[in-house]
Amino acid sequence: MTLPVRHDSMRARNLGVVLDAVRRGGPQTRAALAERTGLTKSTVSKLAGDLIEAGMLAESGPARAGERGRPGVEVVLSGDRVAALGCEVNVDYLAVCLLDLAQRVRFTRRRGQDNRGKPAKRVLAQLRTLAVEAMAEARRLGLDVAGAGLAVSGPVADGVLLTAPNLGWRDVGAVDLLGLPVETTLGNEASLAALGELWFGAGGQDFLYVSGEIGIGAGLVVGGELFHGTRGLAGELGHVVVSPDGPRCRCGGAGCLETAAGQEAILTAAGDVATVAELLARLENDDELAVKACGEAARALGIALTSTVNLLDLDRVVLGGIYAPLFGWLAPPIERVLADRLVKLRSTPPTLTASQLGGQAATLGAAGLVVHQVLADPTRFLPR
Amino acid sequence: MTLPVRHDSMRARNLGVVLDAVRRGGPQTRAALAERTGLTKSTVSKLAGDLIEAGMLAESGPARAGERGRPGVEVVLSGDRVAALGCEVNVDYLAVCLLDLAQRVRFTRRRGQDNRGKPAKRVLAQLRTLAVEAMAEARRLGLDVAGAGLAVSGPVADGVLLTAPNLGWRDVGAVDLLGLPVETTLGNEASLAALGELWFGAGGQDFLYVSGEIGIGAGLVVGGELFHGTRGLAGELGHVVVSPDGPRCRCGGAGCLETAAGQEAILTAAGDVATVAELLARLENDDELAVKACGEAARALGIALTSTVNLLDLDRVVLGGIYAPLFGWLAPPIERVLADRLVKLRSTPPTLTASQLGGQAATLGAAGLVVHQVLADPTRFLPR
Repeated sequence: MTLPVRHDSMRARNLGVVLDAVRRGGPQTRAALAERTGLTKSTVSKLAGDLIEAGMLAESGPARAGERGRPGVEVVLSGDRVAALGCEVNVDYLAVCLLDLAQRVRFTRRRGQDNRGKPAKRVLAQLRTLAVEAMAEARRLGLDVAGAGLAVSGPVADGVLLTAPNLGWRDVGAVDLLGLPVETTLGNEASLAALGELWFGAGGQDFLYVSGEIGIGAGLVVGGELFHGTRGLAGELGHVVVSPDGPRCRCGGAGCLETAAGQEAILTAAGDVATVAELLARLENDDELAVKACGEAARALGIALTSTVNLLDLDRVVLGGIYAPLFGWLAPPIERVLADRLVKLRSTPPTLTASQLGGQAATLGAAGLVVHQVLADPTRFLPR
Repeated sequence: MTLPVRHDSMRARNLGVVLDAVRRGGPQTRAALAERTGLTKSTVSKLAGDLIEAGMLAESGPARAGERGRPGVEVVLSGDRVAALGCEVNVDYLAVCLLDLAQRVRFTRRRGQDNRGKPAKRVLAQLRTLAVEAMAEARRLGLDVAGAGLAVSGPVADGVLLTAPNLGWRDVGAVDLLGLPVETTLGNEASLAALGELWFGAGGQDFLYVSGEIGIGAGLVVGGELFHGTRGLAGELGHVVVSPDGPRCRCGGAGCLETAAGQEAILTAAGDVATVAELLARLENDDELAVKACGEAARALGIALTSTVNLLDLDRVVLGGIYAPLFGWLAPPIERVLADRLVKLRSTPPTLTASQLGGQAATLGAAGLVVHQVLADPTRFLPR
């Protein structure tokens, strides 16, 4: 790939090194940065100056005229100039978020709507409306949108959503159909949500993020990196088999986890409840059928997670999507299954936690991916 | 870690660079080595000379007196001086192999015996007898044994076999009990067999190696590297759940793959056949019960592999252990399950192949691990 801006490749690399050091180390003086990066103080000062000029770094504390670069002043990532857009199309909602370079959320919009069976073109045009709204908000805030990430509920390759059985979509050129005026990176919803959890969640470098929606996906984070698999299709937890002779699944298989613990399976088992909000209301009133439905889904999740932990060796599982609000009802029976089945092979079964990101994990991960691209190679986004 | 031999760390690194370049690139001239490594020709000549002296490299073709180092002569890894020992204790056999630095197998010994319920101390003493025999053979061949790898049928950590349900062992200090006079590295049998398959098998950098024995394990190789998981316990394919309400498993769970497709399950279902050899004889005579037993095991394997492929995104599965000789009877029904269940999510289901290593995969991987350690850091093994 050739870069769109002519530049000295050493300088490009060092700009990325300085930004990355600030991202990892937080606010710090130029002298500390020089020590951390191994660059000379004068090189760091020059690079930091360029990055401040570009609005990617800022000086902390009140900057007074003529005092730029004085010793003791710390530099921090600046959220005042560059932003990234995160977009998500899922089975029953659309969502966008705007994240600045300092990784603060500046705008979010979520629209619940059933996308099943609708043409991809129409749904992505609706998502574009939300994205355009976010970009207008960015302009109003004085932010340049450096790029976008797009999360979709199915496996992807080269900007194409290969299949989304729950939407009835196949080989959808999602990036083209979204048609944003900025470079857009496509990713699987559960994988991006796992990155969202890694960067914005409860912390930890090794965990399985489980995305419970109408479909069930997962993202495996090992040593702070997402596990992709041979073709980037890893994490299809929803199609781990929990009962070989169970109900047919939209994937073509049968007895997949999704048929037992997907949103629809739970709502149906709870007595054809219409929404997750209503299910929650019933659970809080100790509705017997609703509690039983969660218990059955939890047993299936426990079995699929047993298989997953045995294969992948996990110490921590984060439950996201609808599983986060349902956590109180799902976690105890899941934990019982894991303890029963894993006790001999592992001294301690994995811990379960609920995602704290409130359904925003995937859009945060999608936007965060773009922020990380900018921080790793800022020259592409510097003013020409 | 401080190294036992004082050395110039740059020289140590460069010795490893040269050896690795010869291992990857095969026989080549010193000039080609210089080009490949970026080292000067005189540095390469000096390093190659030291490595020839140490018996780690040799010159190809007939070396005539006074002609060492002449242009055009290629250097190759030498199998004449340094060797590594691979050892395995499995549920119903013990095995050792001796591998030289050129990765040629120089000696193997395998002893079938039922180790279930026997004290670990006694079994490892029996394995030591085989290992001592291999080391005597090494001496006879003029080979120095640089180290040993020990494969065990269970999860390991820090030289300890944590649990081997099929043997009834728990927290066994296997390296200490084996008590070899050389540094010994402990590893899980299926993981080491996966490395054996990577280095000595049909090739390919991305695959799942399935080890079918009395227990069933797996090693996942991604981009030429073994996937370890959070604590090095990944690959417990035998305890992926294939029928949640199925028979109790020795692991404490129920309906694990092992209960349906482990060696004992197959032999029992085939009509209490005593050995795999007898099962094979019956299969070759189209014995109905034997064929049916393989079909049932294959269906369970197909279900467990469906879950695994959905989680890990695999294009290739290598069947080893007893599954290699049974391949002709197992593969077609497994492939039918994979095709049925994976067709919508993946354009092509993963291919199945039989390991060609004839039950030696784990000892070859264990010895190969030591060879790779020597090649990466030869100074530890150079004469003082």
